[in-house]
Amino acid sequence: MSDSSKPTLKGIPVVDTELRQSKYDPPDSPSSVGYTSPQRMQVADENDPLRLECGIDFFPINVEYETYGALSANKDNAILITHALSGDAHAAGWSDEADRTKRPWRSDRPGWWDSMIGPGKPFDTDRYFIICSNVMGSCYGTTGPASTDPKTGKPYGLSFPVVTVNDWVRVQERLVTRLGIEKLVTVCGGSLGGQQAIEWAILYPERVQSVIVLAATPHLMAQGVAFNYAGRHAITSDPNFNNGDYYGQNEPDKGLSVARMIGHITYLSDVSMTSKFGRRFQTSDSRGFNLDTEYQVESYLRHQGESFAKRFDSNAYLYITRAMDYYDASEHGDGDLIKALAPTLCDWMVVSFSSDWLYPPSGSEQLVRALTRTHKAVTYVALESPYGHDGFLLETERLMDIIPSFLSTLELRGKTKRSA
Amino acid sequence: MSDSSKPTLKGIPVVDTELRQSKYDPPDSPSSVGYTSPQRMQVADENDPLRLECGIDFFPINVEYETYGALSANKDNAILITHALSGDAHAAGWSDEADRTKRPWRSDRPGWWDSMIGPGKPFDTDRYFIICSNVMGSCYGTTGPASTDPKTGKPYGLSFPVVTVNDWVRVQERLVTRLGIEKLVTVCGGSLGGQQAIEWAILYPERVQSVIVLAATPHLMAQGVAFNYAGRHAITSDPNFNNGDYYGQNEPDKGLSVARMIGHITYLSDVSMTSKFGRRFQTSDSRGFNLDTEYQVESYLRHQGESFAKRFDSNAYLYITRAMDYYDASEHGDGDLIKALAPTLCDWMVVSFSSDWLYPPSGSEQLVRALTRTHKAVTYVALESPYGHDGFLLETERLMDIIPSFLSTLELRGKTKRSA
Repeated sequence: MSDSSKPTLKGIPVVDTELRQSKYDPPDSPSSVGYTSPQRMQVADENDPLRLECGIDFFPINVEYETYGALSANKDNAILITHALSGDAHAAGWSDEADRTKRPWRSDRPGWWDSMIGPGKPFDTDRYFIICSNVMGSCYGTTGPASTDPKTGKPYGLSFPVVTVNDWVRVQERLVTRLGIEKLVTVCGGSLGGQQAIEWAILYPERVQSVIVLAATPHLMAQGVAFNYAGRHAITSDPNFNNGDYYGQNEPDKGLSVARMIGHITYLSDVSMTSKFGRRFQTSDSRGFNLDTEYQVESYLRHQGESFAKRFDSNAYLYITRAMDYYDASEHGDGDLIKALAPTLCDWMVVSFSSDWLYPPSGSEQLVRALTRTHKAVTYVALESPYGHDGFLLETERLMDIIPSFLSTLELRGKTKRSA
Repeated sequence: MSDSSKPTLKGIPVVDTELRQSKYDPPDSPSSVGYTSPQRMQVADENDPLRLECGIDFFPINVEYETYGALSANKDNAILITHALSGDAHAAGWSDEADRTKRPWRSDRPGWWDSMIGPGKPFDTDRYFIICSNVMGSCYGTTGPASTDPKTGKPYGLSFPVVTVNDWVRVQERLVTRLGIEKLVTVCGGSLGGQQAIEWAILYPERVQSVIVLAATPHLMAQGVAFNYAGRHAITSDPNFNNGDYYGQNEPDKGLSVARMIGHITYLSDVSMTSKFGRRFQTSDSRGFNLDTEYQVESYLRHQGESFAKRFDSNAYLYITRAMDYYDASEHGDGDLIKALAPTLCDWMVVSFSSDWLYPPSGSEQLVRALTRTHKAVTYVALESPYGHDGFLLETERLMDIIPSFLSTLELRGKTKRSA
């Protein structure tokens, strides 16, 4: 029964769909941004703390970010890319040697959205200056529960404050401002990244010409909250969890692994799982009459769980899923989404994926309806897709059509000029 | 973070939907079967072992069962009710004192399908003799992993063989035969119980006049296999699991609790969760900025997980979910469902529930199509229901219309007469 002690996958093609690219551009390809290295900026210190939504004045906050392309003299060509639950600042290109040494899992693949960012790609680095930063509470360079609390000299663990999408966006605003950028051409992200785009539009109407919201809804539904809860419960039930104080010891990898399995199922659709795995067995043609990993879908899930536990921090998973639960755009309008969106000034693009049941099209339509009620410029693309929530990462071919045309429409409408 | 150390639910109405009845008939009600006590029968011993699908000749097998109503002199009025994953033989009435002492969680509610079984109810005990038995591998009286292995004098644990729906049905056949019953009026069950009904029709064509298959499909889809895997992984990752050898010690309740949470989400629908809980908080009007149980849906899930862990055995959960994974009716036709169903002789009733995504209507339709292709008598009722998979337990009002009319059609067609 001890699955984890056994060798993993035997000859089964395992695809990490969340990171899969249609094909990888090698670093020397003319369409790759090449080797990249993360940068750090402190955006809150003792003299200038950030008042978090929970009420705490917090510092220090260090942000890890990457940029691709060159900022124009007018500083009017910047785009912010926002990442989802398990993402990081490394959106395009290949990690440089120092980063590969620190984070070896990155060495075999480029940034998580490399297919979309680079010379000649939808987020064309010959034209745009692209920024991607890691969210607060994560474990990929920006201050989070694994960071050292300067007051104690130890990792924060569960003494880290509960951060929100709102906090993340205000951290990003500080970063963008300190990069000298007054107005962004667009903020684009999928899933929890899409919710950050919504929050940008609401918090900083004058600072964004447009937002692109992929596979994201104004809030998570009860079912999603429930799945997050079960995942967090798996982590906190792991005896290695030790109330979040596990750094430098055995980590709650088994619990995190179960949490990731649960999450991963919600990123796929029943259709994609059936077509990808069906009821096929891993190594034999028939049932082995045991309780081990036997079906292909089981070995796939095990691989997802185990590899995630190696690269992610359990506390970060708790904090980020909580931010996911908490987000509700309508709170800016005291529960009224139309009122919440009324002050926004940007052009909107909203894209939903038909088989997404975590952030379903009905939720995207709710957003679009509220926007049209308050007379906003909104382009809604409801994609038919079998890939479930992961569609926003897998339907790159279609996003390659949609996104550049939206960005050029912005230019036609003189929006980019106006900001200059 | 240690949820389990905190008091549960504060004033929130908690409903165990899987066991919820529209209303409870007290034991002295004329429509209740009153107090019941489980019976035991040994159906396999050293001289007459059961050859399990895994190839093992197994004994002893003791079956716990209950009966309601009286068997007619012709023994032609018997109905077998088959239970789902976490069910037991106690389908109707109230546990007698001895049983309540042994299994205290039963004391506050009647059998799991009391609304359907009793004098004047759809399974009318004034007319029919109703049998319900606990499946092999479960923890409610029939031989399972928690039973004592006579060879060692200790509980089987993981040395218990992997049992299947086919094995369960062959155990039931022995029970029914030893009760002197040649032919059943119907075999009826929902979910995994519905799959037992399908198996009865295939294995014993001459022994069933009809089967009633509720919320069950010819096989579980990849997504369901995946959820079961994540649940089992939560159990086996619990350090108390101890490779299944935990009896008399601390049990892997935390792992089982997570497994139940995952399962429970799959029994409901997004619609029912939204209408029941939405994004409402448990005790306050706004976010508490913590990682505890805050939303109503979280407290509901925690209650489901904790109460289940008190009443169910982790090993039994592993074995029964494996049987759920393994079942595929088409295997009787070498992968061809039409061929598998061709030898069946009974009348079929198939009922699906529109929002069921664990055993979805598309799977029920697959069964119905295969039956019509091979010219079987099949009545298909596709119910519009918001209750998800739990619809088969919650849509009692509608089943109260459908099932008696199906049973009376059987009589009109002379099937019950013919068998006499």
